[in-house]
Amino acid sequence: MQQNNGRIGVGMVGYSFMGRAHSNAYRQVTRFFDVASAPRMAAVCGRDEGATARAADALGWDSHETDYRRLVERDDVDLVDVVTPGYTHREIVLAALDAGKHVLCEKPLANTLEEAREMAAAAGDAGTVNMVCFNYRRAPAVQLAKTLVDEGRLGEIRHWRAAYLQDFIMDPSFPLIWRLQREKAGSGALGDIGAHIVDLAHFLVGPIAEVSGMTETFVKERPLEDGTGTGEVTVDDAAAFLARFEGGAIGTFEASRFAAGRRNRNSFEINGSRGSVAFDLERMNELEVYFADDPEDVQGFRTVNVTEPGHPYAGAWWPPGHILGYEHTFVHTIKDLLDGIKTGRSPAPTFEDGYRCQAVLDAVERSAASREWVAPENGGI
Amino acid sequence: MQQNNGRIGVGMVGYSFMGRAHSNAYRQVTRFFDVASAPRMAAVCGRDEGATARAADALGWDSHETDYRRLVERDDVDLVDVVTPGYTHREIVLAALDAGKHVLCEKPLANTLEEAREMAAAAGDAGTVNMVCFNYRRAPAVQLAKTLVDEGRLGEIRHWRAAYLQDFIMDPSFPLIWRLQREKAGSGALGDIGAHIVDLAHFLVGPIAEVSGMTETFVKERPLEDGTGTGEVTVDDAAAFLARFEGGAIGTFEASRFAAGRRNRNSFEINGSRGSVAFDLERMNELEVYFADDPEDVQGFRTVNVTEPGHPYAGAWWPPGHILGYEHTFVHTIKDLLDGIKTGRSPAPTFEDGYRCQAVLDAVERSAASREWVAPENGGI
Amino acid sequence: MQQNNGRIGVGMVGYSFMGRAHSNAYRQVTRFFDVASAPRMAAVCGRDEGATARAADALGWDSHETDYRRLVERDDVDLVDVVTPGYTHREIVLAALDAGKHVLCEKPLANTLEEAREMAAAAGDAGTVNMVCFNYRRAPAVQLAKTLVDEGRLGEIRHWRAAYLQDFIMDPSFPLIWRLQREKAGSGALGDIGAHIVDLAHFLVGPIAEVSGMTETFVKERPLEDGTGTGEVTVDDAAAFLARFEGGAIGTFEASRFAAGRRNRNSFEINGSRGSVAFDLERMNELEVYFADDPEDVQGFRTVNVTEPGHPYAGAWWPPGHILGYEHTFVHTIKDLLDGIKTGRSPAPTFEDGYRCQAVLDAVERSAASREWVAPENGGI
Amino acid sequence: MQQNNGRIGVGMVGYSFMGRAHSNAYRQVTRFFDVASAPRMAAVCGRDEGATARAADALGWDSHETDYRRLVERDDVDLVDVVTPGYTHREIVLAALDAGKHVLCEKPLANTLEEAREMAAAAGDAGTVNMVCFNYRRAPAVQLAKTLVDEGRLGEIRHWRAAYLQDFIMDPSFPLIWRLQREKAGSGALGDIGAHIVDLAHFLVGPIAEVSGMTETFVKERPLEDGTGTGEVTVDDAAAFLARFEGGAIGTFEASRFAAGRRNRNSFEINGSRGSVAFDLERMNELEVYFADDPEDVQGFRTVNVTEPGHPYAGAWWPPGHILGYEHTFVHTIKDLLDGIKTGRSPAPTFEDGYRCQAVLDAVERSAASREWVAPENGGI
Repeated sequence: MQQNNGRIGVGMVGYSFMGRAHSNAYRQVTRFFDVASAPRMAAVCGRDEGATARAADALGWDSHETDYRRLVERDDVDLVDVVTPGYTHREIVLAALDAGKHVLCEKPLANTLEEAREMAAAAGDAGTVNMVCFNYRRAPAVQLAKTLVDEGRLGEIRHWRAAYLQDFIMDPSFPLIWRLQREKAGSGALGDIGAHIVDLAHFLVGPIAEVSGMTETFVKERPLEDGTGTGEVTVDDAAAFLARFEGGAIGTFEASRFAAGRRNRNSFEINGSRGSVAFDLERMNELEVYFADDPEDVQGFRTVNVTEPGHPYAGAWWPPGHILGYEHTFVHTIKDLLDGIKTGRSPAPTFEDGYRCQAVLDAVERSAASREWVAPENGGI
Repeated sequence: MQQNNGRIGVGMVGYSFMGRAHSNAYRQVTRFFDVASAPRMAAVCGRDEGATARAADALGWDSHETDYRRLVERDDVDLVDVVTPGYTHREIVLAALDAGKHVLCEKPLANTLEEAREMAAAAGDAGTVNMVCFNYRRAPAVQLAKTLVDEGRLGEIRHWRAAYLQDFIMDPSFPLIWRLQREKAGSGALGDIGAHIVDLAHFLVGPIAEVSGMTETFVKERPLEDGTGTGEVTVDDAAAFLARFEGGAIGTFEASRFAAGRRNRNSFEINGSRGSVAFDLERMNELEVYFADDPEDVQGFRTVNVTEPGHPYAGAWWPPGHILGYEHTFVHTIKDLLDGIKTGRSPAPTFEDGYRCQAVLDAVERSAASREWVAPENGGI
Repeated sequence: MQQNNGRIGVGMVGYSFMGRAHSNAYRQVTRFFDVASAPRMAAVCGRDEGATARAADALGWDSHETDYRRLVERDDVDLVDVVTPGYTHREIVLAALDAGKHVLCEKPLANTLEEAREMAAAAGDAGTVNMVCFNYRRAPAVQLAKTLVDEGRLGEIRHWRAAYLQDFIMDPSFPLIWRLQREKAGSGALGDIGAHIVDLAHFLVGPIAEVSGMTETFVKERPLEDGTGTGEVTVDDAAAFLARFEGGAIGTFEASRFAAGRRNRNSFEINGSRGSVAFDLERMNELEVYFADDPEDVQGFRTVNVTEPGHPYAGAWWPPGHILGYEHTFVHTIKDLLDGIKTGRSPAPTFEDGYRCQAVLDAVERSAASREWVAPENGGI
Repeated sequence: MQQNNGRIGVGMVGYSFMGRAHSNAYRQVTRFFDVASAPRMAAVCGRDEGATARAADALGWDSHETDYRRLVERDDVDLVDVVTPGYTHREIVLAALDAGKHVLCEKPLANTLEEAREMAAAAGDAGTVNMVCFNYRRAPAVQLAKTLVDEGRLGEIRHWRAAYLQDFIMDPSFPLIWRLQREKAGSGALGDIGAHIVDLAHFLVGPIAEVSGMTETFVKERPLEDGTGTGEVTVDDAAAFLARFEGGAIGTFEASRFAAGRRNRNSFEINGSRGSVAFDLERMNELEVYFADDPEDVQGFRTVNVTEPGHPYAGAWWPPGHILGYEHTFVHTIKDLLDGIKTGRSPAPTFEDGYRCQAVLDAVERSAASREWVAPENGGI
């Protein structure tokens, strides 16, 4: 594979919100991290030629394409980064894998479990590096939580308690965007933000054995975007589920776009036999940490400002107490992806992890429909 | 009924933790509130004569009894207050009602739904005033939340999210106290602390239509209190459930005694179409309040210090910003109970409310066993 | 001295806000603490016979007097508790000492340094027990801070940073109450609430060597209480000063009644060479604690819920996480005072401590006038 | 002036911590903001050829220079950005102004007031655009505070209360770096971090009329960096001062590098007659806002997440609740500087503002020495 003069050529499909975040990460990563191979931002791809050309210029891509099939065939593209809506992931990813490219895919991996299974299998066959962009794994505070869990400093994990809360569609006059249409988005709050907390649970606590879920759509009709009337909302506004982890912990999960005042509250708490941690993305530089074996008179949750040189990723940026923002989680993701490409090892979360996340989302939806506990599919990947 | 020279004679059965809290409330209520009829602390009752006599002295009771049957028959007792473990509630309460007394009963009303139904029915028949001591309803901040809901200032309620978390039995060497034995406590975290958040949900959001629950016991064997070996823990260490409210809201509930670092975190959040509130008992003088119609540039959760003269109950105490403590919730409960006795109206939560709470706990346990959604019994009271 | 049948007879002069808080403490102390000698609430004293009689009844005093000279002479009064405005302290206290009584005096000890010096000297001569009611010393979290300082767990103290902020007189139509008149109140925010943080600084950090201060009156004219016009505000609305402690630490102090939204924010922070603590009275059950020698990856301020059985005073009340309120600080004060009377040792803060506090307030006012650094008088007591 | 093909050519002197932050801003600004003229990163300058060349490559500069005199003369440099230690500012800035360049200078503008006065005068004479990089003015939350003040929504300002606290030099074995040497750094905590809160006070409250200050050096000897022994610390470890603003408000300021556990706590609070705001850089995306005219039952400080599209600068970045980090304040600074260069107007804080800040720092040092109140010089600029 041509390495772009030692660099990894990147082709990105899509260029809106996530495209901006990924582009920023490619531009920034070598400025702050020592990566095995630097990326070259070879081409961005979109269907609208003019808009795509403008995006290439604005976001820093060397060229643009209007057909993803052309993009994935380009010799100067080693890595295909897919940031389009979920319903298009499968065909683009399969084409990229077929062309022998490494692939980074936005979450959720797919809109259905079948698609996710097919994509994970294809990625396994392809032998190239694959990764799903669950960027919140790479917030330094989340990495610190992982360290504490892995080192046994929280003891045996008993509880996972997560809620990802937003409020951006509460107004009934908010239009019927693609995210509110099942055929395009797969699901609503569940797949969009619930997917993040499922992935974090997998990362921090481990596999989920079974779930009992419910979903709800509070506003069932919304204006069409083109102003021609109203249409049915076909995804969930909110979802919640109980879970049992294979390791014995129990969990609660909730995702909602109707939590007034919660702009982007991706929060979780883990309780173990020796300690606890709590995280909230709106204060993403902090991790609340409790140790049961602290001296009795000074036990309490510590607010750890996860910006010390020794904290994960933090040392590459600024001095202690100088906080990072949302976009940095993507830079860290790209950093590890580039290193993975160099060494030939897919960094977690891989497509297989993406499939497992999808299997939980699928189980929640089946449980909501059947009103029974459901085990996520574990389908021979 | 003899009114103790215009005062309401009280007989209390039990004198440990809850007995101390109730006794304090009887002593304090007239010092801070203008009550219709003052209480007279006529007698406290317990099985151990010496200990009961000492309790009477320490807690301020005029006399003591060693048989609740005697207590409920005393002419100078108008109100029987039952603060014993749950498995004894039924017989004491029924005797008190039978003797024509008003009754205050500690929560949960009973250890089983059958008992609760019988007690609620008997209370209805008796015609005296009855009340269950879900004291947290009467934290000023909770009352403020109720006001905001009732006045429509939060709009249509969509979400209830509650977790009552403690950690006092995490140590596996903690002994097998009565609270960990099903025959005495009915259930574990579910009935002890979960009952509180069910009652708060009823108070603030309304009736629960159905639930899907799970329970877990992390430490299954514990040392006997008498040191003769170990015994089986027969109640839940933790419980969680999903709920649908009759009004259309959805809810999540969790109760655990294994949340390391959470000493007494009775927390809930309500999200409505116009605003939200959030509460945490460990900061019980505060209510977080969000209004969606605040000016766009200054929207955010307000930390309301619920100690203003105009706030519920607060004006009776100290100037703004001078906080109240745990025990004050009992004083407020007794204040409203005494006023209810004067007017002949049972203040909420009544035994019927206690039954409805029990019906939800019962549904959660049945759901945990059957692994299906279960509707709480609504049995013709 | 007649001991009231083994009990300590108390006579209290004054019965408004502080009178309510002290009365509550006498009623409650033996209910929760094991005191050497229980108090007997012998008599309350006020000038208005009717109002005083009603106060006696409402607050639980056995009798009342209308002349403090009579009260201090009563044989059944062992302890005189002075809760009147500051300008009356001197004469009442001196009379009580002269009558051989123990004396508890509300803060500030006096309105002028001269008075304070005279009172401290008289108390020393009298040989009875004396104490100034700086009640916040006895918040459990403040006591924990003291323990950490004394045990060296914060290392050498470098910084004290305190602000006592209120906002109750911000409205210019708020009337010219006695607290806003120099001849009655001595000073404004400085003496009323600034005195508390000076006392806490003395308690936690040690003697103050010199200060540089300023005072300000934002609203200079206010309506008279009788509605007959307006009058001049003759005290400070706010005061701030820098300080050097004898031990080498430096400090900042601020007291204001014009801090919009801060109802009763009595807050301080101490930074030492090994750690720090931070306190805010509005969350008085919590102490923020930082240790510099925590493992590097989990350093941070801990929120210690100071309600554990082993925490100062807390074990006498409720289980962990069940918080205390404002009034409990008075109960703790009375507990220690009663024990002090039994043993014949004046518990801190003594009148001498009250004098030293007054000397700092005096130095601040002199500094504000002279615009120079001023050392507090240290006048041979 | 050659505009680099319509772009503004930038030459930066210095390339360490601040150099990294500024370089990032030049790279990022056009990616997120619509600027009048884009920057071209023409050259970076440092004395060590190899290190400077590596910095140019790492930070994205087109070329490098080893003599600032050469840099300021280059035709392709329109803007000279000075990020070297304070003792070098004067000569570089004067050379750049003399060469007719626009100048951005890191704070504090100079190490002495004389230098600052000379530089501000020269900038006035030069007629080019000048700016001091007090980047925290351009945190969105600080801008929101400014809006609230300017629109009168906080009313008349009475209090400013600021503390900038760090702890990075607490260890006595931390070496005698240039920041701890008076001849290089001018002062210690005062000039380094105290300068920021002085500038913020000027920005938000207005000119300071007089100050009373103190400084302290806790660790007076430290190891030399070259290991050859120890040397004297000749700057302050901490400084604090009282201030009166010309507008009638009073203020307290504190800067310390010895506040254990406070990594970068740049915090202030403003109290006005109608409301208050509070800010802490460690949670820089939040502003606490209180309005005295909120309904009485729901008054309280709101935590405004300053990430809404309508908030200052925030709309250029990510959706609500997706937070920004430290480095973004520099991007905002450069955005406004570039726009200022296009229109020919120096954006605040100008060199004159930098001089006024320096005058306050100077007054604090003179006050600390003379132990008197001192008015900042206001020297005819």
